[in-house]
Amino acid sequence: MTTKTSMPTLPSRVIIREVGPRDGLQNEDAILSTDDKIRLIYALSQTGLSHIEVGSFVRPQNVPQMADTSEVFARLQRREGIIYSAIVPNVKGALRAIEADVDSVMMFLSASESHNQSNVNMSVAQSLSLMPEVARIVREAGKWFEVVLSVAFGCPFEGDVPITYVLDLSERLLNLGAGQLTFGDTTGMAYPTLVQRTVLAFRERFPNQSLRLHLHSARGAGLANILAALQVGVTEFDSSIGGIGGCPFAPGAPGNLCTEDLTHMLHEMGIETGLDLHALMDSARMLEHMLGHVVPGQTIKAGICKHLEKTA
Amino acid sequence: MTTKTSMPTLPSRVIIREVGPRDGLQNEDAILSTDDKIRLIYALSQTGLSHIEVGSFVRPQNVPQMADTSEVFARLQRREGIIYSAIVPNVKGALRAIEADVDSVMMFLSASESHNQSNVNMSVAQSLSLMPEVARIVREAGKWFEVVLSVAFGCPFEGDVPITYVLDLSERLLNLGAGQLTFGDTTGMAYPTLVQRTVLAFRERFPNQSLRLHLHSARGAGLANILAALQVGVTEFDSSIGGIGGCPFAPGAPGNLCTEDLTHMLHEMGIETGLDLHALMDSARMLEHMLGHVVPGQTIKAGICKHLEKTA
Repeated sequence: MTTKTSMPTLPSRVIIREVGPRDGLQNEDAILSTDDKIRLIYALSQTGLSHIEVGSFVRPQNVPQMADTSEVFARLQRREGIIYSAIVPNVKGALRAIEADVDSVMMFLSASESHNQSNVNMSVAQSLSLMPEVARIVREAGKWFEVVLSVAFGCPFEGDVPITYVLDLSERLLNLGAGQLTFGDTTGMAYPTLVQRTVLAFRERFPNQSLRLHLHSARGAGLANILAALQVGVTEFDSSIGGIGGCPFAPGAPGNLCTEDLTHMLHEMGIETGLDLHALMDSARMLEHMLGHVVPGQTIKAGICKHLEKTA
Repeated sequence: MTTKTSMPTLPSRVIIREVGPRDGLQNEDAILSTDDKIRLIYALSQTGLSHIEVGSFVRPQNVPQMADTSEVFARLQRREGIIYSAIVPNVKGALRAIEADVDSVMMFLSASESHNQSNVNMSVAQSLSLMPEVARIVREAGKWFEVVLSVAFGCPFEGDVPITYVLDLSERLLNLGAGQLTFGDTTGMAYPTLVQRTVLAFRERFPNQSLRLHLHSARGAGLANILAALQVGVTEFDSSIGGIGGCPFAPGAPGNLCTEDLTHMLHEMGIETGLDLHALMDSARMLEHMLGHVVPGQTIKAGICKHLEKTA
């Protein structure tokens, strides 16, 4: 059998950050009990994941699904080697995160004014002005400080977001102390060639800075965008167990990339994730049971492919 | 803005063959009326499509959804420049297809014994033995003769299907008179590197033979497989309006690639299809109305992306 391919060399290993407990659940109508969240995160901790986004420290009246994040952190059974993270929009959120002993604090802001305004009720300049203080609080507590840049591949209000703007903003974020950047395709506007152009431009400007991608699948192209990103050497991705959540602007459309679907494709291509696909499927089924509805992920319906069964 | 990308050159134009009226509808529980089918095919004929798979000539008791294919062909308003095709398993089907004045007759067989047996109740050798007669009947009537090779990327019963076997079978099919080959990923077992390996091996052995791919999306990787195929120069694909049908082995999982989702991604990457995405969305909505349930396609839920709105 020939193994010739014109495909650029793919990475041999990828790190998946699980965002279901936060980005997934915050888009669900039903609010899971704290007990259920802890059970879900415990199950996810047994799958080989090294990073789980647990919750957020925002105003409870804005995101009631995340109101118990402090309690979840207090009660979850942490497993060594796993980073349990949370996102925060401001100084108050950072202080609460540190109090909850969060391993990695991720501040989020948007690459467009209107999305930042709608998301955190501040201008981009206001978000940036808070960053040094947030970074200082997190660093002094001995924790990781990261930044998530939303709508980096297009804004549902403003349309295209120029790559140069995203890079200029990235430079400011890195100068303000962001240890790691994540570019979010918050409403699923990325497409393969745009992903590659963005990553290559980022790499050219910041040759030594790693970049995580938080891709969505609003129009079915999520895994195509992953393939495109792999081809330009991206090795860190966000995804959500069961594919829940992530697309408030497209009701009924899958939003977040599904962790099992992503893992399935990576394993088929021989790319290591360190994840146990069967255990992920168990977690997705547990989640389905907790939510009381079918999740958008497809592998949970189609099953693991025969050629992966033994090694999944 | 940089336009640098490491992506192999993509084709500038792609031809999509619409299979919803056959491969889609035959997997629906509800049987559409002949009138509805004709309305749907008429709507699809206004979208810029150049090839529509209308139905099949198989035993009505096996696929009752396709029992009226002769009547559909008799009554449909054909638009010049569009190929209206049908699939057949044997000589009897071919004779009925010619009587119905089908533009292109596609004989189907499987790349695995057990799938061929389960699908057409014959061995692969028996299917092959019928082919010269089917080809003769079709050619003498002045029509196109094509072959669809199912489970070319893996069989749900037998697992992996070796590429060498697929190529050996292809050689026999071409020698027996197949004018065009389509490789079907009938149950969604393809993945990007397998697609590329298969296409490149095919190209090496049959340098002047075009190849159409019928890809599925059972585990979310459909458009990733398309991207992989585009990167090795494939320009002919099957897809199904609304993403209906195509995966009897995975209930609830999307099977066929969705025509609107595929077109959306291609247009985003600047690849021409000749299709009017808005008109496709209208057809998908019409279909949803006829079927009385939501279709699996995602663009119909998420909407056309802002950056495509004007030129979709």
